[in-house]
Amino acid sequence: MRSMPASPCRCSPFSNSSDVSVYTPVSEAELAEWLGHYSVGKVISCEPIKAGIENTNYFVTTAQGRYVLTLFERLPAEELPFYINLMAHLARHGIPCPAPIADLSDQYLRALNGKPAALVTRLPGRSLERPGVAECAELGALLARMHLAARSYSAYLENPRGAKWWRFAAREVKPFLDRRQSRLLDEELEYQAQNRFPDLPRGPVHADLFRDNALFEKGRISGVVDFYFAGIDCLLYDVAVCVNDWCLVDPQADRQLDEARTRTLLDACHAVRPFSPLESEAWGAMLRAAALRFWLSRLYDFHLPRPGMLVHAHDPEHFRDILELRVAQPPFWID
Amino acid sequence: MRSMPASPCRCSPFSNSSDVSVYTPVSEAELAEWLGHYSVGKVISCEPIKAGIENTNYFVTTAQGRYVLTLFERLPAEELPFYINLMAHLARHGIPCPAPIADLSDQYLRALNGKPAALVTRLPGRSLERPGVAECAELGALLARMHLAARSYSAYLENPRGAKWWRFAAREVKPFLDRRQSRLLDEELEYQAQNRFPDLPRGPVHADLFRDNALFEKGRISGVVDFYFAGIDCLLYDVAVCVNDWCLVDPQADRQLDEARTRTLLDACHAVRPFSPLESEAWGAMLRAAALRFWLSRLYDFHLPRPGMLVHAHDPEHFRDILELRVAQPPFWID
Repeated sequence: MRSMPASPCRCSPFSNSSDVSVYTPVSEAELAEWLGHYSVGKVISCEPIKAGIENTNYFVTTAQGRYVLTLFERLPAEELPFYINLMAHLARHGIPCPAPIADLSDQYLRALNGKPAALVTRLPGRSLERPGVAECAELGALLARMHLAARSYSAYLENPRGAKWWRFAAREVKPFLDRRQSRLLDEELEYQAQNRFPDLPRGPVHADLFRDNALFEKGRISGVVDFYFAGIDCLLYDVAVCVNDWCLVDPQADRQLDEARTRTLLDACHAVRPFSPLESEAWGAMLRAAALRFWLSRLYDFHLPRPGMLVHAHDPEHFRDILELRVAQPPFWID
Repeated sequence: MRSMPASPCRCSPFSNSSDVSVYTPVSEAELAEWLGHYSVGKVISCEPIKAGIENTNYFVTTAQGRYVLTLFERLPAEELPFYINLMAHLARHGIPCPAPIADLSDQYLRALNGKPAALVTRLPGRSLERPGVAECAELGALLARMHLAARSYSAYLENPRGAKWWRFAAREVKPFLDRRQSRLLDEELEYQAQNRFPDLPRGPVHADLFRDNALFEKGRISGVVDFYFAGIDCLLYDVAVCVNDWCLVDPQADRQLDEARTRTLLDACHAVRPFSPLESEAWGAMLRAAALRFWLSRLYDFHLPRPGMLVHAHDPEHFRDILELRVAQPPFWID
């Protein structure tokens, strides 16, 4: 058993991180008391994680295993069961996602220092900055398996960053946009309003499965993490979010889609859950919708930072560029 | 991806195993079809496991991970949910036990070749023939954590090898016993009838946690397996079953209890779930009950083998010896 440093958990806020504003310190004694309500053995170590805008996260190692402790700082308490139970549902279907650990009263959420908190399994592996064709195939297959497994999940939460939110965010950020941006936004909102696809296959989607939310080990996906933007939406929207991040020719320099990676991701997805003709038809609009959603949230966080939030986190222009490219070019699709 | 041998799953019965009688072959095509109802990816390999009296077991590796596939050959179908849901319950409380994988219709049990079958995670590690003091401490702590975690499990199944079954088995094996054995059995049944402890803490117990049902990795318990004798009983009974197997001076030559290992196991258990005064009082009787139960089942299997069952599996004399020693000697207990 490794010895525990004197006060491993009481740390200063993540001053090196660009986008963490809220932070709840947890002392060794507080953690030990809290873990006494679980069956995971005694704590061995605890270290803060420099990631996450919405939550405070710690890596926790106990006599039993490795976990992530999350204190929910901003998410609405009534939404938490949707996310936590979705992870539990997917985990017991064999999807490699964090599995919530139930406490001795059989609950997944338990208050810690005044915040709702959850203990979930820590998954092995590392995220990739430059996934290749093989990794895109892995992702496509996993996405489809996740969507199929999620179908039997019965809870409902509308995608919190869906069309309703776009209209709200657009109103808020409009005053900060130049004429060209403003026109792009108006036209895209109008296009999306004219191109709704209410009959696409729907279900729980991750909705934020960027490269940094997938862990790889030995060429396989060992973990999909951060389900706190999940909700019910078109399954194809989830695919579009992924393609707009995983399949760029060069995320910094050329945001066009790389044909090989895009087609491979789609083919792998299609092989597990075949796309319907309606999904083929909706694909172009869906890529644009996925670009619009992240352009809007980045504009919003950039121009309307929350109190205490550091604002230089993500560049909105990245997704403006992606949106313009998706508008201009017909997208790749399965053969 | 490892290539799959031509016909990995269609194997002859486990002819080398001493105690396997029933066996359901599963072809590659049958397994692939069955796994199509799960979200664990494509099958990579499948190999039969030479263990288990009651079930057919295979190690199954898929694109997602490593699993054990069990086809239930003899267990009553109505009891299976108790075992499977108990494993699911414990797994989501962080106990390292096989986690059942739900299929796409959200069920843990799915028929395969006419038998109820389940897919569970395959745990790492190996069982130890000669656990030392440190491993007995690990086991004691894990037992107590498992008992605490199981408390919130709401299903009920009486220990299928409890006092009611002893009386049935005793009647059946009686004609095969010599006078000394017969007297020991009568006296012990009478002693147990006079020494019931209805007020001991009860709950789901594993009831068969012999050394071969615990896996170790790097000095830690990485898995507790084979929950198919589990039921509701005194928690202390589970401790007694373990001590009678894990703490013998020498399982072959001297079945007295080793003081250091016995006390260590008990202390570790007590540190997580403190024993009550009533449990202290009941300890001697409980060790005898645990010895009686396995003596009876070994006598039963020896003298009344099921059709097709090979009979030279376990020596009943091992547990007769243990029972006589527990009757003769006051047991070690926590200080």
